[in-house]
Amino acid sequence: MKVLITGGAGFLGRCLARELLARGSLKDTSGKPQAVTELVLLDVVRANDFGDSRVRTEVGDIAERGVLERVIDERTSAIFHLAAIVSGQAEADFDLGMRINLDASRLLLEICRERGHKPRVLFTSSVAVYGGDLPNVVHDDTALNPQSSYGAQKAIAELLLSDYTRRGFVDGRVVRLPTISVRPGKPNAAASSFASGIIREPLNGETAVCPVEGATRLWLLSPRKAIENLIAALELDTALLGTGRALNLPGISVSVDEMVAALREVAGEQAVRRIVWERDARVEKIVGSWPGRWDTSRAESLGLTGERSFADVIRSYIADERIQLR
Amino acid sequence: MKVLITGGAGFLGRCLARELLARGSLKDTSGKPQAVTELVLLDVVRANDFGDSRVRTEVGDIAERGVLERVIDERTSAIFHLAAIVSGQAEADFDLGMRINLDASRLLLEICRERGHKPRVLFTSSVAVYGGDLPNVVHDDTALNPQSSYGAQKAIAELLLSDYTRRGFVDGRVVRLPTISVRPGKPNAAASSFASGIIREPLNGETAVCPVEGATRLWLLSPRKAIENLIAALELDTALLGTGRALNLPGISVSVDEMVAALREVAGEQAVRRIVWERDARVEKIVGSWPGRWDTSRAESLGLTGERSFADVIRSYIADERIQLR
Repeated sequence: MKVLITGGAGFLGRCLARELLARGSLKDTSGKPQAVTELVLLDVVRANDFGDSRVRTEVGDIAERGVLERVIDERTSAIFHLAAIVSGQAEADFDLGMRINLDASRLLLEICRERGHKPRVLFTSSVAVYGGDLPNVVHDDTALNPQSSYGAQKAIAELLLSDYTRRGFVDGRVVRLPTISVRPGKPNAAASSFASGIIREPLNGETAVCPVEGATRLWLLSPRKAIENLIAALELDTALLGTGRALNLPGISVSVDEMVAALREVAGEQAVRRIVWERDARVEKIVGSWPGRWDTSRAESLGLTGERSFADVIRSYIADERIQLR
Repeated sequence: MKVLITGGAGFLGRCLARELLARGSLKDTSGKPQAVTELVLLDVVRANDFGDSRVRTEVGDIAERGVLERVIDERTSAIFHLAAIVSGQAEADFDLGMRINLDASRLLLEICRERGHKPRVLFTSSVAVYGGDLPNVVHDDTALNPQSSYGAQKAIAELLLSDYTRRGFVDGRVVRLPTISVRPGKPNAAASSFASGIIREPLNGETAVCPVEGATRLWLLSPRKAIENLIAALELDTALLGTGRALNLPGISVSVDEMVAALREVAGEQAVRRIVWERDARVEKIVGSWPGRWDTSRAESLGLTGERSFADVIRSYIADERIQLR
């Protein structure tokens, strides 16, 4: 089986590639495991090939037709489309967000349609598709009302994927990712970047700025569970999704204060003291428009699972990254 | 004031142009009436200029940048964007629907953005943005779940308009039109074309095919009220719309059986006998995915109004079109 990951050099792309190589197989549309014989990793920079002969790395601009034509052929039976311009950057550079989050997603669907073999395509969408006057609890079918360009572009890509699926051009699925925390590495331009930073930096003995109030409620998922869910969503029997192709993944609803309390529980008061509270209106506006409570019973009934406690998420992060608490 | 109507040669475009010329003015953003000094009617065929010196007709493909650049300048302060590929045709020709319903709508917004003067832009959307498992009553903020390519394209155009508005590129508004009935003239490729045909043809002494069951519920608005509402929505104080730019217009919820009963009430049994019942699965699938009951209290609270009875709609049609009952 040939598999493509767009955004293959990004954090989730890298984690997903590593996991697919470790598993060695992916279920086909009849539910039977098939060996992953070729894993194509596309990104604007060269992805890690893990020294594995099954990996082919491709460097290119995903909004260019020739690039996508090079990585999608009639044997590409599963596509994880993760490439995106993150929320903060899409708000700062409208045209770039439209080009990558909308145009490239459409082009990817269009090339699948031209190939004619109806591949399984998984899009990652986001909490940012929600906004405005939200109900207390968000369901899979709560109206999309994005209040950021990133959210609007993701919502549009969802609609495109649904229509391309309805017409039989692709077999599409969408997972709306909670904010991923704790991400290793450096801060990025996502408005939600602090949701990793306020845990990661203090654990590394560094200070981190928290740009929102402690009462701000977030919807979080660990990288490890995110990857498990991406694979499970791609492997789902398509008939179970019906006309509702988008799934809200089971995350944990926590306030920033609760995140800090979990950090204190795991790493002590000295870690918490490394958080500097400096409100940033731009970040507050974007993050504040996202819902903090979710009903994910549909995803759970389809076998997708999340974490139970944020303290456990922090402990997994410490174990995975081999961090020495100080 | 310079006003543009796209789809200016279409039925609604023609009615709207006639009404704007008759009124002679449109409220500006401060609510003051301003004389309509130039009315540009764009379409793929030449629109009627009503022999009025204020009218300028332009012929061109709305998906071409040069055409839109010719009709939108810094003095264009109100745009009614009605041009569209109808539901049945967008389902039959996917690429054409994408080009006109999505790409041209985006291009129109993009050229407004380039002009930089933040014009008021009214998009007409449709009941077809709804579908799937619907609640008993549809509200303005019921989730969009289109089950046709036309509906998907309209839903995407709504999202684009909302984001361009949020960013201050345009001052956008969307009205979701009920099915317009009774339209004069000939049947068209819309899946809902029969909703006019089963009234219009019998009144003209001709037979009409009804492709759906009598229990099918429709959401209807007369052409006259539709035009009033388009103008009222464009004139609305933008602040009253807030982040929810789309309004479901106040239509009448009627079953096809009730439409037929109203025809009987107005024109007698001989008219009803001219309806031939021949179910068409293609039409039933599209029309059956649309909701039949609506809560339009938001539009009404903003001063938009609809009809009270479908028999009155038929009587207006007979009066407007000077039909001799036989």
